[in-house]
Amino acid sequence: TIDAERLWDSLMETARIGATPDGGIARLTLSEDDRRVRDWLRARCDALGLSMTVDEAGNMFATRPGARPDLPAIAMGSHLDTQPTGGKFDGVLGVLAGLEVLRTLDAAGYRTEAPLMLVNWTNEEGSRFSPAMLGSGIWAGVYSREYGDGRADARGDTFGASLDRIGYRGEARAGAVRFGAMFELHIEQGPILEAEGVEIGVVQGIQGMRWFDLTMTGTAAHTGSTPMGMRRNALLGMARVIEGIDRIAKAHPDAVGTIGFLEIGPNSHNVIPGEVRATIDLRHPSDAVLDRMQAEVEELVRDAAEAVGLTHRLEQISRTAPVVFDAECIASVRTGARAAGYSTRDIISGAGHDAAHAAAVAPTTMIFVPCKDGLSHNPAESTEPAECAAGAQVLLEAVLDYDRR
Amino acid sequence: TIDAERLWDSLMETARIGATPDGGIARLTLSEDDRRVRDWLRARCDALGLSMTVDEAGNMFATRPGARPDLPAIAMGSHLDTQPTGGKFDGVLGVLAGLEVLRTLDAAGYRTEAPLMLVNWTNEEGSRFSPAMLGSGIWAGVYSREYGDGRADARGDTFGASLDRIGYRGEARAGAVRFGAMFELHIEQGPILEAEGVEIGVVQGIQGMRWFDLTMTGTAAHTGSTPMGMRRNALLGMARVIEGIDRIAKAHPDAVGTIGFLEIGPNSHNVIPGEVRATIDLRHPSDAVLDRMQAEVEELVRDAAEAVGLTHRLEQISRTAPVVFDAECIASVRTGARAAGYSTRDIISGAGHDAAHAAAVAPTTMIFVPCKDGLSHNPAESTEPAECAAGAQVLLEAVLDYDRR
Ligand SMILES: NC(=O)NCCC(=O)O
Ligand SMILES: NC(=O)NCCC(=O)O
Repeated sequence: TIDAERLWDSLMETARIGATPDGGIARLTLSEDDRRVRDWLRARCDALGLSMTVDEAGNMFATRPGARPDLPAIAMGSHLDTQPTGGKFDGVLGVLAGLEVLRTLDAAGYRTEAPLMLVNWTNEEGSRFSPAMLGSGIWAGVYSREYGDGRADARGDTFGASLDRIGYRGEARAGAVRFGAMFELHIEQGPILEAEGVEIGVVQGIQGMRWFDLTMTGTAAHTGSTPMGMRRNALLGMARVIEGIDRIAKAHPDAVGTIGFLEIGPNSHNVIPGEVRATIDLRHPSDAVLDRMQAEVEELVRDAAEAVGLTHRLEQISRTAPVVFDAECIASVRTGARAAGYSTRDIISGAGHDAAHAAAVAPTTMIFVPCKDGLSHNPAESTEPAECAAGAQVLLEAVLDYDRR
Repeated sequence: TIDAERLWDSLMETARIGATPDGGIARLTLSEDDRRVRDWLRARCDALGLSMTVDEAGNMFATRPGARPDLPAIAMGSHLDTQPTGGKFDGVLGVLAGLEVLRTLDAAGYRTEAPLMLVNWTNEEGSRFSPAMLGSGIWAGVYSREYGDGRADARGDTFGASLDRIGYRGEARAGAVRFGAMFELHIEQGPILEAEGVEIGVVQGIQGMRWFDLTMTGTAAHTGSTPMGMRRNALLGMARVIEGIDRIAKAHPDAVGTIGFLEIGPNSHNVIPGEVRATIDLRHPSDAVLDRMQAEVEELVRDAAEAVGLTHRLEQISRTAPVVFDAECIASVRTGARAAGYSTRDIISGAGHDAAHAAAVAPTTMIFVPCKDGLSHNPAESTEPAECAAGAQVLLEAVLDYDRR
């Protein structure tokens, strides 16, 4: 049995690294605070005598040997980076619950057949450097090291330079560290488990997700002396796109569509916006529906640009197909939850996770626990100590079940 | 007849002071470059034997005596400071055309009845120290000397300290130097004259202007796992406001309405915007129409917030009444343009100018010349030598006509 208090203490201890006054965490990937929480994790792994490998994308892998060195490792983990308005659980719970599993086995002197591995993926959030799940994507070979290194944040600082700066560029080639299966515990980030009073979500897969960069360009000019009929207001075109995406998503059951990032230039009270840049996020469990939504968005953008007299550039920056998780891994989660006595429900993840990239390489699944009001990417994100402990216990049981097969 | 080449040479000579590689000027008010261009102007005035007075706000007044010392001076001028992304004409043309008028009269040995005065106002742009038109505002008694001195730039440096540092704190009390009329030549900063192929804009006044800060607040949440029906998307509400302001402005003939500044939070690709902040700029020549537009905007904001489930705060941050220029001054511009053989069009200034403060103290008007594509506050700002010469010639004729009355 995992130590619920030790797990909670670790969550609260790391929550101080990058803490915000409103109770959240702003621990952007590859920031100084990211370095500090990585150092914290490395020290805890050292204390358990684990061997740590860091790869060239900054992904951290700590291994605990099993009885049979010929077997591939069973991995647990998630990410320690957060959104700028992040909470204390998104990602962090999956890493610290994995650590808690290893601490529990250590204290019990339990030796698994396969080696166990704890993983901290770099830049899951994608908030400082897009796209999300970049570290696991480089590991899985979806993105090259060069592509990753070149990604720039809003200030022009790059992923590669930031990784070097915080000292977490590892020696290992991306993909060189492999494992035989992966279990990722995570908060649901949605309202379903809480609404139905279910303790554990048995995750079946992840919905598909497509991101686009959209730049609309008009003419910057004086707000006072440029008549309405002579304007090419890039922000007006973008306003129509914002409304249109909301309309398109609402027209497809189970779809979501959002603009979460937007920047306007020159951004001065008395200058008509000459250029506006935004990212569009479309999701649905079916790729066919996503194809239709994408076509509708392309038409929307063309029409809005034409109506306002703008030029535009719409560029797909990421595309993740819907993911179906491994049946055996899912069976182990189900067995583990039953053994631990928790209620379960099958569920599809609305959010993307590193497990999506892992699933392309090895048998993978996820375990969800509820979060208050379905809220995440928000300082008010909240999961109870007992809910965190339930997730960690099911993670332990699932890993041991998988190890026994 | 003014000397078109001498005027152009002066424009190009001063354009080197604070020149930027892209062909513009970054000559922020009270900077070292502002001191250099002021020294240049003072030397040219000395060469003409003019007497120079500088007031406590750094405004420069150079006087050429007339035949009748009992008459108040007829003033010409504008400002020599620029935006950080300024062009070669905004403000500068009005000062150098005034200088050219004085040089022309000097060469011709022409003596006016009233004294003539050349004015360079301090900090018209308001870009380093807000608000705009600060020097003329202190002169007109709209702002106190203390208020002006305390205005700080982004680095915390104050107007007063900067004025002392460049040595342009004059002895004269603000407002002590008076004149009997004022003519300000300026580029239109809009597209109307160019579009209609008209050479001279006979400016009737300056439209009224109201600025507002608007904050709309919803709930930041995950874009992937938050169903469309459970969202409070602040950017969706703001998109409706952006479109609505455009619609309201278009519904009132001669009105303009714009959001030029907008910031969203947390501004992350996969977070539904929880808070959006913008400034609204409404302008119209009639205060009654502005009252109606303001009421419509207030209703628009309320409706958009309610429809999306947002809270909001709408706050007026500035309000300038419309200015109507002096009929006799306008008549002199019309007569002058006819005498010089240029096509004219009545026009209302969309942008604010020092002439607005001058008009509160003495009969005042403005003369506009076209600028390419209506562009200003932009290094690409462009007015042809012949257009500059036309403006200066009309300024000369208007001043002589006014002097003869
Ligand atoms: N879990 C999570 O928030 N992942 C970030 C990628 C996404 O937007 O789904
Ligand atoms: N002439 C000018 O650009 N003034 C700045 C104030 C404004 O009109 O926005």
